Amino acid sequence: MALEKRFLDILQKSKYQDEDYAILNELATHIRKRILEVVSKNGGHLSPTLGAVELIIGMHCVFDSPNDPFIFDVSHQAYAHKLLTNRWDCFDSLRQTDGISGFTRPQESPYDYFIAGHSSTSLSLGVGAAKAIALNKDSKVPVVLIGDGAMSAGLAYEALNELGDRKYPLVIILNDNEMSIAQPIGAISKYLSQIIAGKFVQNIKNKIGNIINKMPNASYLAKRFEESLKLITPGMLFEELGLEYIGPIDGHNLKEIINTLKIAKDMQKPVVIHAQTLKGKGYSIAEGCLEQWHGVSPFNLQNGLTLSNSANLSPTQVFANTLLDLAKEDSKVVGITAAMPSGTGLDLLIQNFPERFWDVAIAEAHATTQASALAKEGFKPFVAIYSTFLQRAFDQLIHDVGIMKTPVKFAIDRAGIVGEDGETHQGAFDISYLNLIPNFTIFAPRDNATLKEALYFAKDFNGGPCAFRYPRKAFKLESGIILPTPFKLGKLEILQTSPSDILFIGYGNGVGKALNCAKILKEKYTKECAVVDLRFAKPLDENSLLDLAKAYKQWFVFSDSSKIGGIGDILNSFLQKHHLQISLTSFEYEDFFIPHGKVEEIESKLGLDEKSILTKILNRKN
Amino acid sequence: MALEKRFLDILQKSKYQDEDYAILNELATHIRKRILEVVSKNGGHLSPTLGAVELIIGMHCVFDSPNDPFIFDVSHQAYAHKLLTNRWDCFDSLRQTDGISGFTRPQESPYDYFIAGHSSTSLSLGVGAAKAIALNKDSKVPVVLIGDGAMSAGLAYEALNELGDRKYPLVIILNDNEMSIAQPIGAISKYLSQIIAGKFVQNIKNKIGNIINKMPNASYLAKRFEESLKLITPGMLFEELGLEYIGPIDGHNLKEIINTLKIAKDMQKPVVIHAQTLKGKGYSIAEGCLEQWHGVSPFNLQNGLTLSNSANLSPTQVFANTLLDLAKEDSKVVGITAAMPSGTGLDLLIQNFPERFWDVAIAEAHATTQASALAKEGFKPFVAIYSTFLQRAFDQLIHDVGIMKTPVKFAIDRAGIVGEDGETHQGAFDISYLNLIPNFTIFAPRDNATLKEALYFAKDFNGGPCAFRYPRKAFKLESGIILPTPFKLGKLEILQTSPSDILFIGYGNGVGKALNCAKILKEKYTKECAVVDLRFAKPLDENSLLDLAKAYKQWFVFSDSSKIGGIGDILNSFLQKHHLQISLTSFEYEDFFIPHGKVEEIESKLGLDEKSILTKILNRKN
Repeated sequence: MALEKRFLDILQKSKYQDEDYAILNELATHIRKRILEVVSKNGGHLSPTLGAVELIIGMHCVFDSPNDPFIFDVSHQAYAHKLLTNRWDCFDSLRQTDGISGFTRPQESPYDYFIAGHSSTSLSLGVGAAKAIALNKDSKVPVVLIGDGAMSAGLAYEALNELGDRKYPLVIILNDNEMSIAQPIGAISKYLSQIIAGKFVQNIKNKIGNIINKMPNASYLAKRFEESLKLITPGMLFEELGLEYIGPIDGHNLKEIINTLKIAKDMQKPVVIHAQTLKGKGYSIAEGCLEQWHGVSPFNLQNGLTLSNSANLSPTQVFANTLLDLAKEDSKVVGITAAMPSGTGLDLLIQNFPERFWDVAIAEAHATTQASALAKEGFKPFVAIYSTFLQRAFDQLIHDVGIMKTPVKFAIDRAGIVGEDGETHQGAFDISYLNLIPNFTIFAPRDNATLKEALYFAKDFNGGPCAFRYPRKAFKLESGIILPTPFKLGKLEILQTSPSDILFIGYGNGVGKALNCAKILKEKYTKECAVVDLRFAKPLDENSLLDLAKAYKQWFVFSDSSKIGGIGDILNSFLQKHHLQISLTSFEYEDFFIPHGKVEEIESKLGLDEKSILTKILNRKN
Repeated sequence: MALEKRFLDILQKSKYQDEDYAILNELATHIRKRILEVVSKNGGHLSPTLGAVELIIGMHCVFDSPNDPFIFDVSHQAYAHKLLTNRWDCFDSLRQTDGISGFTRPQESPYDYFIAGHSSTSLSLGVGAAKAIALNKDSKVPVVLIGDGAMSAGLAYEALNELGDRKYPLVIILNDNEMSIAQPIGAISKYLSQIIAGKFVQNIKNKIGNIINKMPNASYLAKRFEESLKLITPGMLFEELGLEYIGPIDGHNLKEIINTLKIAKDMQKPVVIHAQTLKGKGYSIAEGCLEQWHGVSPFNLQNGLTLSNSANLSPTQVFANTLLDLAKEDSKVVGITAAMPSGTGLDLLIQNFPERFWDVAIAEAHATTQASALAKEGFKPFVAIYSTFLQRAFDQLIHDVGIMKTPVKFAIDRAGIVGEDGETHQGAFDISYLNLIPNFTIFAPRDNATLKEALYFAKDFNGGPCAFRYPRKAFKLESGIILPTPFKLGKLEILQTSPSDILFIGYGNGVGKALNCAKILKEKYTKECAVVDLRFAKPLDENSLLDLAKAYKQWFVFSDSSKIGGIGDILNSFLQKHHLQISLTSFEYEDFFIPHGKVEEIESKLGLDEKSILTKILNRKN
């Protein structure tokens, strides 16, 4: 069903009657039904987007998209916006290859102002848009929808700092569902909770005001009055930064939302509307602060049970279980996650060692810098983080960790193509951006068993910072097929030799693909090749590679990483340095942002599935 | 003169008499004299470090370095700390090759806890140190000295957010000299100014309190009382984030400082001490908010006049003048600096077009993301930034600019070795970390004249984001030696051909070096070589390079950049892709952090001076 005309008509009205609100509420119900229908089938983000339905309807009632920029902070809460802007029918293709993206995406629709898969970009975008509007002497007003969790990141604060000073017209809806992805973390979150308590105190304040007028003991009451004041000015933090504050309002009450948005839009200043919402609203099983409903795999709509599951442990689970063992043995082992406790598996550690493992909120830069101090103090800090989010700590990796050469251990989850989350979430670049930093050691396990070995190695490695990467969901190589061996600094491992001059070099999850291709090559085409697990991207095992260069003249590189600065480039540089004439072909990612879809489908589109790779190898001119 | 024993003794005392304070004040005078003596000779940071002398003496009186971690935020304010910790005599070598670093540097002294050349890292380091201390059940207390300017960066806020929640013992001295590097920018800065005004209101408050008690019209007064409260609770912002606040105190009054630090140390919580200081204190010419005294070249101590100067315009000046011309012609040209208006030359633009050029405070990430929104809205935003500081916006370059393919123009100043500021400031990595981002166009001028051309090209280039780099102080190639030509997307320029098989490929400031080396090679060794200005690192001029590969088999690369991911690696990758057998040698930086010193001396140490390069070329086996 495309959106009915009666809904679309009502969004255009300038004034609403009670019956209009009834229709809007019906619309909210329809939207929720559609979201649940598709997400239960495709997987996706669920509870944040269910909680934001009325806020988004309100935005469309009061603001004019795409004329007024609609800026969503971590746009996985924007499904309702997609449904309201010509994507009702094709919403079935959510997060599928060539289908609707799980985030706002300008390529997909003119109603999507910016891409936003990483958190806390909205206020900066709002400031930029507001500056443009001011220069154009335009009357548009940007409207930002930002969750309370996104407020913990430094980028949001940098924008508030400028906004509070320059005071561009900008409406900020703070969608406060009392949790970011996981539990509420940090002073800001606590602060917002206090505001809620403040409602009660606000009533008391009025009473005190009256009483002061009547009672003889005015001095004592004035003192009490002063003390209570701290609680009764809920927007203080924002007001002190120079922004207007309205709230808290009920983020599911359309009348309240629409009236407030109208007031805010007319104020011609930066205004924060503090809206309280319930995550998962409308799907009782998911309502509340239940982290497992933030992002979901396909599930049964009736009972909420996940449909897909794997008997094998995921790399994330292997990481967490192993780290737990290490933490039990060695009291110097500590760990940090930036608002991804369950995504990284660190929740297991936080439960067991709440004093030694920390969720520091969406604050990757802060996570990295503090880890360096912990390492300097003799601890063994593991920073568990997704490849794509570690980008947010790039300068800290260089300035606070690299130069200091502190033994921080970066456990990089979601390396390679992550699938349905698409271009903002692909773990394509970590090898390239880490390799360029002096003093880093970079390595990778090939399967679950060597992931354990990677942790053992990292724990006691004291020669500076190190980083190891592993994929989402599962390694291509099942554990047990090749026996695990311990990592030795800068040592590769030869998995099979060959009388031919063909060498497959795998790195990380690429080893499994290299082995599969080698197997098919042998079985189907009776061509032999040697296979090496490079293990260390840095330092390179130059001696072994020099030997290999004597025996094998055709090298093929397998790694789930970007070509530029990736394993192929690292090896090219090595070959040139030693004046070696080797033909090297790398099966890494070309130089573009990889869209969303199932990992296998995307690899196939990129020509990086085994069939395409074999074709290329067989057609390779020598 | 090494520090006299009477000074050192007094730092150890647990209680001070008036005569002790007199000696400490004398110490402050001595320190200032020594700083002025050396900085006027060597250049360096001046006014911030002069302003922090008493605060640092106070830290040493109350805390125990290196037992208690002394954490300096942007440690150019820490010269007094260096003088108090065994570096009085060798302080003459400040910022000289192999001499004392301009920043704290653990390699130099155990009293230096962390390196800190980039701003706003101190609170995260403090949190990390505090966690370690807590786990060790130790009684040490970290003490942080942070300037008000550093408070604008997101990293500081991310740390405050965790600190306010977990409440580790940590003493934070907020050194408020009412300016960061340039003018005070942003709401935080305004907020701190209000606090000062608050002192006056504080007196009024007491009076109102008394009056309420006595007057009949208590209700009206209570209302007034409420209004004034906002001003009379100066630490509100910090207190609402869960930190204790003391202040403001006089940051030059040793008695006040020492007493306050003692109280704060004993509180066993995170405490902010708000200390007001005067930048340049003790050197009257430099006192106050005078940006030119923040960092200085050698100058005459008597009259404050700079000793060194150049008749030629610096690249920064050329950039600013050209951008001014462009801004006059084209109203869509806008620009952003992150707290470096004079360093980047953007002050000239802000003066002329205050509505179109913005200093957004120390907030590189925010600068980058907002520029992307401005570009989307049809403007032509120039982000003027140092190579080393753009690292702080890496994820924004990828996520907000790269994926969106918005035509933001990054003018990258201080590319290559910057000299005396050393390892935290070298512009070594920008080519490597920009090249790995899809959709970026990367190019470089070779001299002042082509820098103008670079701006012309960038202004109207609409094919996505672009970045061009230029060195500090001066290009090696003087303008006029080679006629400037306009940039054409992805086109290199052949500067001279040769019958030999040797090709010099220069990029940016490397072109000058390539030409010099070619000249010497011809004049001294009668060896000819061709010289090419690559101009574009991305996209590469593949067709021309393919032609060149036919004629020249020995390639030598000249670029002021890191080898890993730099121009040599980019070309190696190209050669491998086309199966070309070329011997390529790159004269870029090896994989380590380059220390401070004069540019020429450092290049010589790295074997990258012309003499060393020529030796290598002549000894090169073919």
